[in-house]
Amino acid sequence: MYKYMTPEIIFGNGALEKSGESCLRLGAKRVLIVSDPGLQESGWTNKIEQCCEDIDLPYSRFYGAGINPRDVEVEQGVDAYKQAGCDAVLGLGGGSALDVAKGISILATNGGRIADYEGVDLIAKPLPPLVMVTTTAGSGSEVSQFSIIIDSKRRKKMTIVSKSLIPDIAIIDPVLLSTKSSSLTASTGMDVLSHAIESFVSLAATPLTDVQALHAIKLVSYYLRPSVAAKSNVYAKEQMAMASLQAGLAFSNAILGAVHAISHAIGGRLSLAHGDINSILLPHVMNFNRIAAPERFKQIAEQMGITTAHRTADECALLAVELVTKLGADVRAPQRLADIGVEREDFSVIADMAMEDACMVTNPRDITKQDVLDILHEAY
Amino acid sequence: MYKYMTPEIIFGNGALEKSGESCLRLGAKRVLIVSDPGLQESGWTNKIEQCCEDIDLPYSRFYGAGINPRDVEVEQGVDAYKQAGCDAVLGLGGGSALDVAKGISILATNGGRIADYEGVDLIAKPLPPLVMVTTTAGSGSEVSQFSIIIDSKRRKKMTIVSKSLIPDIAIIDPVLLSTKSSSLTASTGMDVLSHAIESFVSLAATPLTDVQALHAIKLVSYYLRPSVAAKSNVYAKEQMAMASLQAGLAFSNAILGAVHAISHAIGGRLSLAHGDINSILLPHVMNFNRIAAPERFKQIAEQMGITTAHRTADECALLAVELVTKLGADVRAPQRLADIGVEREDFSVIADMAMEDACMVTNPRDITKQDVLDILHEAY
Repeated sequence: MYKYMTPEIIFGNGALEKSGESCLRLGAKRVLIVSDPGLQESGWTNKIEQCCEDIDLPYSRFYGAGINPRDVEVEQGVDAYKQAGCDAVLGLGGGSALDVAKGISILATNGGRIADYEGVDLIAKPLPPLVMVTTTAGSGSEVSQFSIIIDSKRRKKMTIVSKSLIPDIAIIDPVLLSTKSSSLTASTGMDVLSHAIESFVSLAATPLTDVQALHAIKLVSYYLRPSVAAKSNVYAKEQMAMASLQAGLAFSNAILGAVHAISHAIGGRLSLAHGDINSILLPHVMNFNRIAAPERFKQIAEQMGITTAHRTADECALLAVELVTKLGADVRAPQRLADIGVEREDFSVIADMAMEDACMVTNPRDITKQDVLDILHEAY
Repeated sequence: MYKYMTPEIIFGNGALEKSGESCLRLGAKRVLIVSDPGLQESGWTNKIEQCCEDIDLPYSRFYGAGINPRDVEVEQGVDAYKQAGCDAVLGLGGGSALDVAKGISILATNGGRIADYEGVDLIAKPLPPLVMVTTTAGSGSEVSQFSIIIDSKRRKKMTIVSKSLIPDIAIIDPVLLSTKSSSLTASTGMDVLSHAIESFVSLAATPLTDVQALHAIKLVSYYLRPSVAAKSNVYAKEQMAMASLQAGLAFSNAILGAVHAISHAIGGRLSLAHGDINSILLPHVMNFNRIAAPERFKQIAEQMGITTAHRTADECALLAVELVTKLGADVRAPQRLADIGVEREDFSVIADMAMEDACMVTNPRDITKQDVLDILHEAY
């Protein structure tokens, strides 16, 4: 028996303009807009403030989310929420700002510290109305039941999982992707691929998630390169926005695997783009996992354009690993852990943390600490 | 720009047992169970009452839904709801009982008569907590924003569309399919196919609905025959339950087309199984629609097992029409309108009503009253 949940989704060019009225529809009287300095600079926070002003919805600002979502940001945000007397949260951002917005929402109605909610289903009280506008194709946070927050003291990415974290309304506006740098487009695009592949081979995969995951794999294979190549390629951005959404629906319900478990462990120690770490780890974890589900990896290869007729499932799986490596190289995502500053002496601590991560539970192949260490060495 | 919404879904053998606690989780104090005499006879209403008793959730009964959902049943049901002081609705049934349950929910909080809500988005106030357990693979009512209710005076099936009609929680338990007769399995299975095909070629189709619709088409093509052949084939029933769910998610968000518009017009006049009418109309409407979207029909053919390489899209589309006809024949669904009692002299009234149906708006090919008449004559 399994469950499947999604937020209400509004998708399309210009969807951003629905952000204010979405909050109003949920009964908001004063909304806290949560975002980051980069989006402030590129003018998107002005746009969203304008949406609120147009319909006379009072708002307050918290634009302090960093490249990775941190407990201190959540605490600052919830102070802003309470001081201003807000009763709803409107997140605008990539995974980091949206995860901070989720953290603020948890503390707004449940109190305590964010570390109290690490794990599965520990949020007792309903959250305030929550509307999320994604600006990357990307994290999938706008549709998922996940929030990943760094515990500063433990230098650890905490995985918080609860269906309360699924926003009420998710807004995906491909126009917002036009200001992203090519490296951020590449990094977040490889993150989408890791969501889609990990959820498709997850132990918790279902037909409802499989179809979304497979289509996301196809879209990334076809459209990530042109999307990275040209800011002006609006069609490719739209397709990547859809890929991100479908992968998000898949992993929110099917959960993930070892790529994310290891990536969270690394990301807790080093302030790196989540997508860059995933991009490096993905082919190595696929290579480790492929004997657990050869037929699934064959389907992944098929979505990526491989002719699977007259090939064994294992041959197809190996080809899929090669294609993922080549895609990362083509879009100039980083290729080795050494290149992004991960150090060998941290491997043991990283492996220990990865083994404890909630995402490890659904990895399709049984995995030991030694296996994680082997993957880290191969990816170094 | 488009929207996508689903209820929370619980799927799997034994999921029925989650029905009572689902109501409780939504805050129900006394629930009205809505069902039909057939399900009472087969013992399923006893089971659901037991689920409520096990958790001390008070309930009342309205088991008066017929083979087609009628306004008078909705009125009787809402009287029962009010007299017993209910505050939530738990539907158990095929499309008919579930649509009556939706009608009761509308009137419970919005008042008036059910005909007041015919059309799109006319429901102002939120409905009471609504949990639906489907017993057919089937109508998709358990996940859709539709309710179809017969207006007795006008002898018309009213289409009511509103996102308020999406239940809070949908429960799909394949075990419930084991008591269905082979003819009901066939009829409802052909209905699933018509949902999947109509939503895939709908003008409102999106990638989110396409992937669910295509997979539903494949599942019906593979599993409807064995499901009709043997009550004991549990695996086939599970696959048909998934097909019904995926087709339901697709059509709730992408809407339908001429098959349903014409079928509603016929069903308003004659008390016939909805699936039987759809089964007869489907290949004829496909044949009419195929020039509007040849590439879409090619994909339908591919899902049904046709090798599409070295064939034109139009050849594939014609083969898809043939396969649908053959599937209906193999499962002994009725083949001609004359066989189920539709009379030629009613064609003009039926065509007029069909042209007004909300489902006609998303039909991919422009259609006139004369086109509808031609389809009716071909299907006679």
